Amino acid sequence: MQTFTTVAAMQNWCLEQKRQGKTIGLVPTMGYLHQGHMALVREARASCDIVVVSIFVNPIQFGIGEDYEDYPRDLGKDSLLLEQGQADAIFAPSVKEMYPPRYNSFVEVIGEMSEKLCAQSRPGHFRGVTTVVSKLFHICLPDIAFFGQKDAQQAMIIEKMVQELNFPLRIERVPIVREADGLALSSRNVYLSAEHRTQAPVLQQSLQAARELIQSGERDATRVKELIVQTINSSPDADIVYAEIYDAGTLADVQEISGRVLIALAVKFGTTRLIDNLIVEV
Amino acid sequence: MQTFTTVAAMQNWCLEQKRQGKTIGLVPTMGYLHQGHMALVREARASCDIVVVSIFVNPIQFGIGEDYEDYPRDLGKDSLLLEQGQADAIFAPSVKEMYPPRYNSFVEVIGEMSEKLCAQSRPGHFRGVTTVVSKLFHICLPDIAFFGQKDAQQAMIIEKMVQELNFPLRIERVPIVREADGLALSSRNVYLSAEHRTQAPVLQQSLQAARELIQSGERDATRVKELIVQTINSSPDADIVYAEIYDAGTLADVQEISGRVLIALAVKFGTTRLIDNLIVEV
Repeated sequence: MQTFTTVAAMQNWCLEQKRQGKTIGLVPTMGYLHQGHMALVREARASCDIVVVSIFVNPIQFGIGEDYEDYPRDLGKDSLLLEQGQADAIFAPSVKEMYPPRYNSFVEVIGEMSEKLCAQSRPGHFRGVTTVVSKLFHICLPDIAFFGQKDAQQAMIIEKMVQELNFPLRIERVPIVREADGLALSSRNVYLSAEHRTQAPVLQQSLQAARELIQSGERDATRVKELIVQTINSSPDADIVYAEIYDAGTLADVQEISGRVLIALAVKFGTTRLIDNLIVEV
Repeated sequence: MQTFTTVAAMQNWCLEQKRQGKTIGLVPTMGYLHQGHMALVREARASCDIVVVSIFVNPIQFGIGEDYEDYPRDLGKDSLLLEQGQADAIFAPSVKEMYPPRYNSFVEVIGEMSEKLCAQSRPGHFRGVTTVVSKLFHICLPDIAFFGQKDAQQAMIIEKMVQELNFPLRIERVPIVREADGLALSSRNVYLSAEHRTQAPVLQQSLQAARELIQSGERDATRVKELIVQTINSSPDADIVYAEIYDAGTLADVQEISGRVLIALAVKFGTTRLIDNLIVEV
């Protein structure tokens, strides 16, 4: 496994792989890898000749007062995990390498999909994501790029960007990986206190309760959301950022549940913000 | 020579060329081709295995009240010219093919370079250009893309975009092609009345006068601009939109001329807007 830290070296290596007729799978990450990331790596390993994993904590997707400085980093441990996971290359550039002085180029998906859920509480976040992902696509030239379903809105926006800007690749979404008690894996879980950690599975519990309610015949999105809020609020320290139900393809508003809907949550425990989601089809 | 009208067909064809190890040269145009475009095609023909010419009048780079509807079009004549010029493929998509309903993805270069000259009188213009050019790069996968120096600011912005978003290609700028009397070739020249056509070479005359003044030792940009304005205003129907001198690499303001400067003009004759420019190095 090779590690690249410059754009030129990574891009030249990927161009050479393409010249040799190899397919490239890209797993973009912010590092501090967990088994959710490794599920993406396994999918990439299974379907592509070459697996490239990028590790870059992308400053322009963090807002003022967010956890950019504190975001956990451990390139040594990540490298060991990726070696075991049989990745072929790591791309771990510096911030200066990705955003040189006077950097001014941005990629943006505007409209409904980019104005709801996390966009409400994290203005500019998705522009930062679409910009860095565009750069990574140009540098690493993937045939397939792998994203986790945990960041459902991110995956939707990136899929829309790929389709509309005609990137020559496809996106594969990989299901959420969970702890035994149901908590969705996240690099941010390390921030949780012991007490908050015991409460955090309430996110998934509320999603399951919502699914059961829908499966029992409830079609009123408001009533389902009420159950979610009630369930989460049974945890003393849970502070709901949002609990919404939207069309799973477009994020359009949903009053009466039909087709595929995305139930999406963001909940804070102290300063730690967790997200989770579930797609339900009726 | 083949003509493609869908993104999928064009992209698949280009992917196949790449798989065969061929280099691709892309000449993005809005059609109604003249010898300025054909100079780009010749450059592409000389340096790439495959030459793709896109012909697309891009609605999102036109402002309200601009000449999008009236922009001259003649795909039949363009095809004949490109056949003679030994292009390999034309990409001529419909607007709906490039911008399907609910299209929402955009690429933008912000900052000084995108706020001056044509950006002043054409808000949103360059966002439309960088977006369509990004799409064309993803569809046609060029190793080299060819742009005319006549649209100097456009070329600068696209070069910055390519560098900052790490597109795996390079831009080649091709010098301005002129009529015998010095008028820069442009598809919009057909709009000129006979009287305006006789006056239009004043743009280049003013640039040449400016160059001579600089070469004679003048370094004060204000004085050079005064001479340009005076020269253009000697034409009774010329209406100056801008006449500016900026750093040729960054479009930073220039008071005292040094290094490479871009002298850039936009002048209206009636409703027809012409641009021209010259780079002077001292």
